[in-house]
Amino acid sequence: MSSGQEPEAVIKAFFDNALSGREAINNLEYLCRQTPGRLPGSQASVRAVRFAAEALKKAGADSVWLQEVTVPKWERGRESCTVISQKKTTSLSVSTLGLSVPTVPGGIIAEVVEVKDFEQLKSLGKENISGKVVFFSQPADNRLINSFSGYAGVVVFRINGASEAAKYGASAVIVRSATQATHDFPHTGVTRYQDNIPKIPAVAVSPSGAETLSSLLKSDPRLKVHLITECRSFPDTISWNVIGELRGSLYPDEYITAGGHLDSWDITEGAHDDAGGCVQAIEMIRLFKSANVKPKRSIRAVMFMNEEISGTGGTTYAAEAMKKGEKHYAALESDRGVMSPRGFGFDAEGERLQKLSELSSYFRPYNIRDFDRGGGGADIGPLKSLGALLIGYMPDTQRYFDFHHSANDTFEKVNFRELQLGSAAIASLIYLIDFFDL
Amino acid sequence: MSSGQEPEAVIKAFFDNALSGREAINNLEYLCRQTPGRLPGSQASVRAVRFAAEALKKAGADSVWLQEVTVPKWERGRESCTVISQKKTTSLSVSTLGLSVPTVPGGIIAEVVEVKDFEQLKSLGKENISGKVVFFSQPADNRLINSFSGYAGVVVFRINGASEAAKYGASAVIVRSATQATHDFPHTGVTRYQDNIPKIPAVAVSPSGAETLSSLLKSDPRLKVHLITECRSFPDTISWNVIGELRGSLYPDEYITAGGHLDSWDITEGAHDDAGGCVQAIEMIRLFKSANVKPKRSIRAVMFMNEEISGTGGTTYAAEAMKKGEKHYAALESDRGVMSPRGFGFDAEGERLQKLSELSSYFRPYNIRDFDRGGGGADIGPLKSLGALLIGYMPDTQRYFDFHHSANDTFEKVNFRELQLGSAAIASLIYLIDFFDL
Repeated sequence: MSSGQEPEAVIKAFFDNALSGREAINNLEYLCRQTPGRLPGSQASVRAVRFAAEALKKAGADSVWLQEVTVPKWERGRESCTVISQKKTTSLSVSTLGLSVPTVPGGIIAEVVEVKDFEQLKSLGKENISGKVVFFSQPADNRLINSFSGYAGVVVFRINGASEAAKYGASAVIVRSATQATHDFPHTGVTRYQDNIPKIPAVAVSPSGAETLSSLLKSDPRLKVHLITECRSFPDTISWNVIGELRGSLYPDEYITAGGHLDSWDITEGAHDDAGGCVQAIEMIRLFKSANVKPKRSIRAVMFMNEEISGTGGTTYAAEAMKKGEKHYAALESDRGVMSPRGFGFDAEGERLQKLSELSSYFRPYNIRDFDRGGGGADIGPLKSLGALLIGYMPDTQRYFDFHHSANDTFEKVNFRELQLGSAAIASLIYLIDFFDL
Repeated sequence: MSSGQEPEAVIKAFFDNALSGREAINNLEYLCRQTPGRLPGSQASVRAVRFAAEALKKAGADSVWLQEVTVPKWERGRESCTVISQKKTTSLSVSTLGLSVPTVPGGIIAEVVEVKDFEQLKSLGKENISGKVVFFSQPADNRLINSFSGYAGVVVFRINGASEAAKYGASAVIVRSATQATHDFPHTGVTRYQDNIPKIPAVAVSPSGAETLSSLLKSDPRLKVHLITECRSFPDTISWNVIGELRGSLYPDEYITAGGHLDSWDITEGAHDDAGGCVQAIEMIRLFKSANVKPKRSIRAVMFMNEEISGTGGTTYAAEAMKKGEKHYAALESDRGVMSPRGFGFDAEGERLQKLSELSSYFRPYNIRDFDRGGGGADIGPLKSLGALLIGYMPDTQRYFDFHHSANDTFEKVNFRELQLGSAAIASLIYLIDFFDL
């Protein structure tokens, strides 16, 4: 750290600077407005990589580099879902799920079977499912206080629904968007086909579209849907993690990583998921430099590529670290949106967790109180085997699934103060962990 | 309470019900969409009073009544502010401040003096101010962690700026909106004229409009503004507080009040300020009834009228309570927006505060942790003299001033879960205070 500064003063400098500067919001605006739809392998993702590297240099990183990552390449084409019932047609808002196969040219026209879950699917069996479109209609349980728990309860239908339905001869699946929201935005996301099961087209329908379809099915169980998805998969291609480093003054060969993922779904600006997390990592570098804080260990801001589809950014980063024998001390991920900060989750227990929890006293002036067990994240998970302490940045996530994987995740849904309280909180925590050798 | 229910079970019932039902969001939508601009004495406010009374009946209140309140009546007319500089004109987004006098017909055309604060105003003195429009340009200090502190630092210019500037002969004032936001929405609010000082027109300019005006003044200090405000004040009129009561089973003559204010500024739907607080009070009644919880004391949901201009709803409610010799046990106000709940502030200290703080254990499953000194509110303040414990509902307020008193405070800026976690939290706290006789 810089000579003679008390931790409290460093943290105050971080927060003051974060809340006054415009760099973060400008970076976020660029990523959202100039590189929306940063799907791995897309042109937008290439522009985002270039921009992130430049932003890290401007923020003051000692070195900035790109790390090659093999990524899948999948493209959405035209898509539509029309209900045909009693000679009337109703168009539903749908979004093809990532990695889905296309429908046959001209689309599928078939009856629909609504199911709540895999058990109901099984009990209906081949005789009721074969040739039909399966509609997974279960909404997220809004009563669960942790919004991620509500999401987790239904995202299984998005991920596994296509193959499960295909086992009974379904021709396609329509999955209610995995969200607590009730609006007309469909929420996309990856679907995973099991080996040796026919691959059938899969789309998410908006929450209100799901209600419409359920309601139409009640009055006309024999209605048909006309489903078109013209998506395509391409051979794997090359993309990049973007890494910026502040060299450590005392233990330069020990690393602390903080970051988010630079890719996003193709239908969204990906403001909360996860341009905001990337911006906070860039800010961490800028805040250390601005306050002239020299960390003991090397601090890296890492913007991972391909979190959304197959996580090769995270696995590549960890694999290279292992190959080089790098010592990874801690790793933090910000990928739960950039709402108001509540705290951090630590993949630790016992005395270590106790010590980490005691850091909360430094955050009381900023009303950041939650220092609990938990944390980790998809991109940093692989670093655990290298001994890194995994940390999850925990903002308030009550409204996160209003945005997640949908066209509703736009720049203007991010509040400057909420974003920047998070940037300063992350920089402060990384600083304290390094300073106190925790 | 209902026979044999543990407090934990009651609270869980409140949260489960709040997060599953649609009553609250429907009530909020009605108030926002059907009664926007609920300024005291307006037609919209009358519709809102009628609706709130009906909603309380539907929620299950044992009795619902209106309490007459004398309110000021002020109406905005056309308003505009045009900068004339070097033969070009630039229109600024302004909103006349509540209770402002109008400009002369056709408006004022005058030079502008930009000042940061009252000291600078004083040092400039009459010779530099007389006949000119004073522009209070100070933005809220974004570095203050409590967004209300940032607001408090500049709202003095909105409230007192007109009379302070008039002392030096100013012809009107333009005040930068009291907000941390940087958008183009002007934020209105009340201004207060001092006795025996000439009343001059006063408008708020949007944050980006303020930046524009500052920038134009730098290149052309002699520029002029053409300011038109056609507002009018009318004689005081009658409006109503709306009150719904659940009769107490054990101490029916002791009262616990929870509520918000039903009026809003005329330029806004007033979703966060404060239709949301009203909806939460209605929900409290509904949640008690739905869970069949019979409070020992009488619980009142009160929707106060005229918080925004002169607070006569709150003073009238307290005065009548005093006149009737009512015992007011506790009073809670929700008027800080309906963002995600963080906790409650209590106007208490010592052992009582300690006991109230210990209630936080019941809220841990809901991630509501902040039980601190503080609280109160404009409408319930007068109940303190009757011995009521004052409580402030404390949501996360980082983005509150994006909305406050502006056209940006709309229905879609409220998240259902955040609103309803608050409703359940308020109902739970009131229940616990009554149950444990705190």
